[in-house]
Amino acid sequence: MEREDIVTAAVLVIGDEILSGRTQDLNTNYIAKYLGELGIDLREVRVVPDIEEEIVAALNALRFRYGYVFTTGGIGPTHDDITADAVAKAFGVPIGEDERAIAMLLERIALQDLNPARRRMARIPQGADLIENAISKAPGFMIGNVIVMAGVPIIMQAMLDAAAGRIVKGVKVQVATVDAHNIPEGRYAADLERIAKEHERVTVGSYPSFSSAGVRNQIVLRSRDSAELEAAAQKVRALITHLSANGTPI
Amino acid sequence: MEREDIVTAAVLVIGDEILSGRTQDLNTNYIAKYLGELGIDLREVRVVPDIEEEIVAALNALRFRYGYVFTTGGIGPTHDDITADAVAKAFGVPIGEDERAIAMLLERIALQDLNPARRRMARIPQGADLIENAISKAPGFMIGNVIVMAGVPIIMQAMLDAAAGRIVKGVKVQVATVDAHNIPEGRYAADLERIAKEHERVTVGSYPSFSSAGVRNQIVLRSRDSAELEAAAQKVRALITHLSANGTPI
Repeated sequence: MEREDIVTAAVLVIGDEILSGRTQDLNTNYIAKYLGELGIDLREVRVVPDIEEEIVAALNALRFRYGYVFTTGGIGPTHDDITADAVAKAFGVPIGEDERAIAMLLERIALQDLNPARRRMARIPQGADLIENAISKAPGFMIGNVIVMAGVPIIMQAMLDAAAGRIVKGVKVQVATVDAHNIPEGRYAADLERIAKEHERVTVGSYPSFSSAGVRNQIVLRSRDSAELEAAAQKVRALITHLSANGTPI
Repeated sequence: MEREDIVTAAVLVIGDEILSGRTQDLNTNYIAKYLGELGIDLREVRVVPDIEEEIVAALNALRFRYGYVFTTGGIGPTHDDITADAVAKAFGVPIGEDERAIAMLLERIALQDLNPARRRMARIPQGADLIENAISKAPGFMIGNVIVMAGVPIIMQAMLDAAAGRIVKGVKVQVATVDAHNIPEGRYAADLERIAKEHERVTVGSYPSFSSAGVRNQIVLRSRDSAELEAAAQKVRALITHLSANGTPI
């Protein structure tokens, strides 16, 4: 497969509440796994505050570089929800109340309750396609290669499902995980590097974890070429078996 | 307080395992809260893959813009641990084996077990100060305004404690949280915006959450001026009390 066949993506998290530490961001991990299933490579994540020029700058940096940009957060009815306006500015297009979005809001909100704040949720940049929201109706949208979603996880997840049908998929990366148990990374690092070099189409990562139970390391191999992946994984498994048979870890 | 008194920071997460979705990043949230306690504003987060030029580009973008940059990940003994070399390249300084770091490794590893892979963990850019690691001994380091830490959470946390003594602190942001219960954001958005405009030194955010139990919204006010914060918070509390007393939420 040629490199240009790979579909890439970035995530742009818009949220003071993530930067302040108030909220643990769970959306990025969900999107990362979701894109993995679609064969799309997540290449970069940025978290920026609820400040228009920051959103515009980050969005423009990301959208020209990656196949898709998925944004989360900032599309509600309150004054700190400025994502739609920032996206319109980044694209240099007008923004206004979208009749289709108003119709969606009216599925949940009575006409007499559709106050100016709620109408804000129908502000959509010109030329965008709406992304439906099965949970609370206020839509996300897709403009160019940018998919704009809510920050509330269950709503974001519904929007991702709705958006998935409109994006180009790639070839899924295959993964092989080899448990290195309590063998220290320093004992297998040189051989692992050699195996990684012998299989350039496979990325090889070593991930330690430490707990009160001690060290537990995992070696993760990833490739779109399953034969190559299996060849490399067999060498890693043999390496770990050999080291395990050779006494106490050092 | 003048704006230039505010100490700012960014986090740079170096990790294929975060981008693939294999690992949920918990370090950013920990660092965000930790910096909040030190009165330092976290302004941006980036996650990049284990690719040297990506790390260099992101680090240079962040280190010239913010007071501090905290990096996590990529300082172990395996071939995919390339952070120290990338940091040296970003700063344009040589990198080599550091005698102080070797001494730290020897507290845990016998000399005869100090193989080339383990010696990699003692590669430190010239001019950096070491950051001790009480857990597994291999140090992090600080060069200029960049603090380089491990990716394993308990080690990162130990390094953050060790680094905290060397960084300039700011004035802590005070926070007031007002529970808006199940009152929809659309009902209080206009008044909330007015209050936010009346108190420019207070940032006001509205954070909805949806669950099977229904909507639960919280309004979070943040400021370094406690009198101003309390004045704004009182108005928000009065607003919510008023709306709560006025019947069923719409």
